[in-house]
Amino acid sequence: MKVKLIKYTPEPERAVAMSARLCYSAAGAEELEQSMSEAQIDKLIKKLSNMGHLSTFEHVSFTFAIEGISRVLTHQLVRHRIASYSQQSQRYVAEHGFEYIVPPSIAVKPEAKAKYDTLMRQVQEIYDELLGLGVHQEDARYVLANATETKIVVTMNARSLLHFFEKRCCQRAQWEIRNLANAMLREVQAVAPRLFTKAGPACVALGSCPEGEMSCGRLAGINANK
Amino acid sequence: MKVKLIKYTPEPERAVAMSARLCYSAAGAEELEQSMSEAQIDKLIKKLSNMGHLSTFEHVSFTFAIEGISRVLTHQLVRHRIASYSQQSQRYVAEHGFEYIVPPSIAVKPEAKAKYDTLMRQVQEIYDELLGLGVHQEDARYVLANATETKIVVTMNARSLLHFFEKRCCQRAQWEIRNLANAMLREVQAVAPRLFTKAGPACVALGSCPEGEMSCGRLAGINANK
Amino acid sequence: MKVKLIKYTPEPERAVAMSARLCYSAAGAEELEQSMSEAQIDKLIKKLSNMGHLSTFEHVSFTFAIEGISRVLTHQLVRHRIASYSQQSQRYVAEHGFEYIVPPSIAVKPEAKAKYDTLMRQVQEIYDELLGLGVHQEDARYVLANATETKIVVTMNARSLLHFFEKRCCQRAQWEIRNLANAMLREVQAVAPRLFTKAGPACVALGSCPEGEMSCGRLAGINANK
Amino acid sequence: MKVKLIKYTPEPERAVAMSARLCYSAAGAEELEQSMSEAQIDKLIKKLSNMGHLSTFEHVSFTFAIEGISRVLTHQLVRHRIASYSQQSQRYVAEHGFEYIVPPSIAVKPEAKAKYDTLMRQVQEIYDELLGLGVHQEDARYVLANATETKIVVTMNARSLLHFFEKRCCQRAQWEIRNLANAMLREVQAVAPRLFTKAGPACVALGSCPEGEMSCGRLAGINANK
Repeated sequence: MKVKLIKYTPEPERAVAMSARLCYSAAGAEELEQSMSEAQIDKLIKKLSNMGHLSTFEHVSFTFAIEGISRVLTHQLVRHRIASYSQQSQRYVAEHGFEYIVPPSIAVKPEAKAKYDTLMRQVQEIYDELLGLGVHQEDARYVLANATETKIVVTMNARSLLHFFEKRCCQRAQWEIRNLANAMLREVQAVAPRLFTKAGPACVALGSCPEGEMSCGRLAGINANK
Repeated sequence: MKVKLIKYTPEPERAVAMSARLCYSAAGAEELEQSMSEAQIDKLIKKLSNMGHLSTFEHVSFTFAIEGISRVLTHQLVRHRIASYSQQSQRYVAEHGFEYIVPPSIAVKPEAKAKYDTLMRQVQEIYDELLGLGVHQEDARYVLANATETKIVVTMNARSLLHFFEKRCCQRAQWEIRNLANAMLREVQAVAPRLFTKAGPACVALGSCPEGEMSCGRLAGINANK
Repeated sequence: MKVKLIKYTPEPERAVAMSARLCYSAAGAEELEQSMSEAQIDKLIKKLSNMGHLSTFEHVSFTFAIEGISRVLTHQLVRHRIASYSQQSQRYVAEHGFEYIVPPSIAVKPEAKAKYDTLMRQVQEIYDELLGLGVHQEDARYVLANATETKIVVTMNARSLLHFFEKRCCQRAQWEIRNLANAMLREVQAVAPRLFTKAGPACVALGSCPEGEMSCGRLAGINANK
Repeated sequence: MKVKLIKYTPEPERAVAMSARLCYSAAGAEELEQSMSEAQIDKLIKKLSNMGHLSTFEHVSFTFAIEGISRVLTHQLVRHRIASYSQQSQRYVAEHGFEYIVPPSIAVKPEAKAKYDTLMRQVQEIYDELLGLGVHQEDARYVLANATETKIVVTMNARSLLHFFEKRCCQRAQWEIRNLANAMLREVQAVAPRLFTKAGPACVALGSCPEGEMSCGRLAGINANK
């Protein structure tokens, strides 16, 4: 999996803090933007995070280039609706010798791994044979596996990202999308640490776990260490 | 493919017409709702449709139960973000002896069809064998084909549906989602014909084709028959 | 203030429960819809509410006709984006002798009330005089007060409503929109009690208060009574 | 009115073009981003615009600081739901000696202007008197006029902006929001001219006018000059 933050709103923390100040001030946006000190930005973002007043976090967006992920993952990913996506098309891009993702639980079992690889080779052969028989790639792709590698460009604003991390960094999320969420979190924490200080699964972000009896127990650990 | 409209806002045409009247009237919603005649509803919806004033079409929603479709289709479908989805999970529902969709272009070529069916049987076998080796179904599903049958419940409001039909009833849309869109269109036209009189691909809905040199030519036919 | 639920998805609780079951079942939507017992619906909705798995709550929508509210309220209301609105236009509907809302804190102070009423009469006079001088109502309305009464039709799905109640039933919300939220909550609880059992401000819905030192203290009371 | 673009996604045209290329290419996003020439970007954006394939335009966002506008305008503005807003609060910011907007049709009529100014002074006096009587500013603001000046920070992505311009640059839109839309259009055309070449009202953007008999006639002029 390759996850790279390729674009984002410049000075995202300043932009969020300025927008929040505007709501409670007689001064204008430009003036606020120039005059706010780092300490003021720091304090304000902390307060907004703690109170869950996240509407100003929407003013900054982050665009990721993501490769080496399966269509299992992207079918889940694109269910997040407050986001924008551009995905490599299986309709227009031929999948000769496609790459595929191997779940770790299969990778560690040699017998399972052998069966998996053999099947993937068969899928590739049949895909090519179907094209050879005059089937268009938009129909040949029906044989492709969920595991087939895909590429996608994703843009989310910081508020939508926080929600995404809350759901998908959770130990109960499916392993591949959790890996993606963790990688995206590392990328944004590197450029806007204050916006994402409290980012993570619900136990980290909210201090509570909605999973009930399915809980992984991490919250108990967090509370024990307080 | 089985497409059934299972729920919708009662009296959808009256609801849309009343909401539109409210904007331009000193009277209240309830009074308008009771007093509008069928002829008034008819005239007003026609005017709204022709002018593209569709915000009032959002007040009515339609819920469909859809079965016998592939995950090729649903991966496209869930990209429509002004909608709500509940889909059968491959993580929680085991796919023993799963059903699969066969593209018509493959169904009509015996040699292609034979290869396709053989591969699907192999996928089923490997899926079961992986489970037998202790792989969880959430990982075994990586071998499942795009063609695997799925079920989904979809809710869209009338405005979002009109947009969906514009894109997906188009001859240039992929065949399976086009079949779905046409089936959904028939369902809603049966219960709210006036809201969906002009529904269909861009050439029907807007009288123009955005596909440029890729156009199917249907618009030329429409114009010739005027 | 007059708040009336005028339309909603039929059998909303059954629709939500069926959609949730579909995700974890090999059976189809129609079959599930018919076969689920009231006890099953009850148990499933309780579980979904407790775990915050609310995506299936989006399949059911509720439409309200609302009158006798100010534009102070509607300017806040329409900030909720996962919703649909049709509002009486001040551009197209003349405001001769408009009605206006009086905040309770003003209504109880005779001196304040007298000043308030006098000003509203002056606004009405000037509005009419501007029209008499040939000013169009779309410009004359610039003199109208925030207090001016308006009418609006609002549609939200159950998930969006739960969020709206969480923010706007809170003691810290502005009094007029809080009154509206409470009235809407009563309306939906009458027709879909199980979907809205836990509906209300954050302290009721989530068992936590995000308001920090501004908290009204209600949560402490809730916890003391446990 | 003061409208300033204060933040936007860096290199917005390259970001859009790269995202579009990714869908139809076996290469990755980063590689595409670096390798695309200006001529390729130019050609691709032109094609996307002409075909209305605007989903990739969502990857780039623009944030505006806007001052010197009325609450007539902002009540309309915030109805655009695919956008983010932070507005100066009348609940928390006192409106002593507030500024107000004067519609041009009133400004040019001395008699109307005199009445307008007198009323605004009275509103200010009563507002201050109410505060003096112990009324909180969140209730005193009910007397404030629609004309009262406000400030707002707005973020929209390029696709949402194109829609906004289509509706609000139209001659039939209300004058104040039209002025805002035109000012925002100038700002974004300065930094991303290729994304907004065809931006403007429907007659400019789409070559058609949905206003029917209410049309301003501009489209006829455009067609005559072809």
